Amino acid sequence: MPAQSAVAWIGDASSGNLRLIDQTVLPVEYRELNLRTVEEVWEAIKALRVRGAPAIGVAAAYGVIVGTQSALSAARPEFDARLDQVLTYLATSRPTAVNLFWALDRMRRVANATSGLTSAELVDHLLAEARRIELEDREMCAAIGRHGLPLLKECSGVLTHCNTGGLATAGDGTALAVIFAAARDNPSLQVYADETRPLLQGARLTAWELMQRGVPVKLICDSMAGWVMKERRVQAVIVGADRIAANGDSANKIGTYSLSVLARAHNIPFYIAAPSSTFDLTIQSGDEIPIEQRASAEITNAFGRQTAPDGCDTYNPAFDVAPAENITALITEKGVIQPVTKAQIARVLE
Amino acid sequence: MPAQSAVAWIGDASSGNLRLIDQTVLPVEYRELNLRTVEEVWEAIKALRVRGAPAIGVAAAYGVIVGTQSALSAARPEFDARLDQVLTYLATSRPTAVNLFWALDRMRRVANATSGLTSAELVDHLLAEARRIELEDREMCAAIGRHGLPLLKECSGVLTHCNTGGLATAGDGTALAVIFAAARDNPSLQVYADETRPLLQGARLTAWELMQRGVPVKLICDSMAGWVMKERRVQAVIVGADRIAANGDSANKIGTYSLSVLARAHNIPFYIAAPSSTFDLTIQSGDEIPIEQRASAEITNAFGRQTAPDGCDTYNPAFDVAPAENITALITEKGVIQPVTKAQIARVLE
Repeated sequence: MPAQSAVAWIGDASSGNLRLIDQTVLPVEYRELNLRTVEEVWEAIKALRVRGAPAIGVAAAYGVIVGTQSALSAARPEFDARLDQVLTYLATSRPTAVNLFWALDRMRRVANATSGLTSAELVDHLLAEARRIELEDREMCAAIGRHGLPLLKECSGVLTHCNTGGLATAGDGTALAVIFAAARDNPSLQVYADETRPLLQGARLTAWELMQRGVPVKLICDSMAGWVMKERRVQAVIVGADRIAANGDSANKIGTYSLSVLARAHNIPFYIAAPSSTFDLTIQSGDEIPIEQRASAEITNAFGRQTAPDGCDTYNPAFDVAPAENITALITEKGVIQPVTKAQIARVLE
Repeated sequence: MPAQSAVAWIGDASSGNLRLIDQTVLPVEYRELNLRTVEEVWEAIKALRVRGAPAIGVAAAYGVIVGTQSALSAARPEFDARLDQVLTYLATSRPTAVNLFWALDRMRRVANATSGLTSAELVDHLLAEARRIELEDREMCAAIGRHGLPLLKECSGVLTHCNTGGLATAGDGTALAVIFAAARDNPSLQVYADETRPLLQGARLTAWELMQRGVPVKLICDSMAGWVMKERRVQAVIVGADRIAANGDSANKIGTYSLSVLARAHNIPFYIAAPSSTFDLTIQSGDEIPIEQRASAEITNAFGRQTAPDGCDTYNPAFDVAPAENITALITEKGVIQPVTKAQIARVLE
């Protein structure tokens, strides 16, 4: 973000607060929320005011500080009971968000390792851990941007899908971090952003982030991506990933598979940018990745208006899988994986 | 339509009226309009209450009857003046609709050829001509359905885009006529309908028509089409066309090009169904077809709600061009053109 991060801690451990950009009112309104109770943090995660796996993890870590400030001057047993309550409570805000549990687990381990401290001292340690989670995420984003930059060197246009930017992370994002890095080098880089039906993350969030940063962006409907490639308006496609199998097959927002086929048919490089934590090496290929099916209303009643007949059946997969053979390279904070093979993935990730 | 046609004449020449299905309130509401003044007909065409080139032509032809009924008992010079006024007025309702001018021109020629008739007799001749225009359109749709049927014989699923059905024509439509014919043979045929952003003709109109006829339909977002092919849910893609060049390159609703590339990549037949009047043999290839660019608001403010940032730039081509080499066959009322070559097109169209 130019002005602000999606997630930040304001002030010290004892009296500070979590500050978020409320993503539910973007792009029509820009509103920052200063959250001072754990209930407010829980609600913000639940209601998607903060979204994107890394950003949720950071918000939850800071939520632990917000939730335990009231017990600062209590003795450790009482403080620890409160901490336990807060950790358990925050974990219920988004039951499918892996980063949420991972961040809360890191906070719990700090508490477990510091039984000799006072409650106030422990809160300082907890805040330091939350700041580390945020910093690591920023560094991860920066490293992805740095590693991906050379791949976009010759591009005058690039196409992206969904939102993979600063709103989803503490830093610059994943695929968007690469685009931001490339745009610093080449201020006339033209980004084409898929609106990303059904939930329009591209229209609502990606277009907003790019405009905030002054990066030229043209919003398109998802069905226009192939024609944009045909007209040679873009020389690369770059998107994020939700889960990557050992062979490189990558699950991501629905529409990613089509883009990977279209890019290949037009001889346009297709890149996926994602942190190493996205890889699940226990999964051999994309065939093993379950595809979540979502409610019809996302398609038939999007955005406050009925656009399909009553009772209309739908097929609404949330994700699809781009096969490794369509992916030119995987961009991680540890380096670029190219070609996308099981051996090369293992080598770069160690 | 099961109950009603998109466009019909009710009653006799002297006291009858034009009846339309108001397509602007579908799919939330089904409303028939009985239009008894030429101003109402003009407004219905202008406001897209009736849409689709053939349906507009038929509506305009019947609009001529509605507009001249008041002059029925006048002498021919007075009637002819009124007729001229009505023809000129109706032509201003959709200045880019070729079928509109074509239908009005046929009506004018009837008048020019019948100077010996009374006004009342002439109106009978005009109504007969309007009915012929409607009947020819019905027969064209039926012939397309008949010729296309064998191509969908082995399909359990078929994918379509935009609206090419009974709402756009006096009959069963073009691509949807083939689907209706196939569904009569195979009642379990599963249709996947692209919602067709930005204007959602698939969600609003195609899904409605298929549900009205009891044909199983699943509505999908446009970005899901590739994944639907990957999962082998469809064995054919069939769409309409707005303009077809001498070599078979076919301009149609934006998104058609992507579908043609995706179908080819999955070895799925890609069919275009269109009347022979859609061919423009003066155009050698799709490169010569101009692509209309439309307003940003269709993308940024489409659902009655702002979904993109203020001032967001867009790229919004209304059409794209599927190249002949991606088209398995062209289905016309004169027969199936396969392979899609200049010579074969010339042969089937004569």
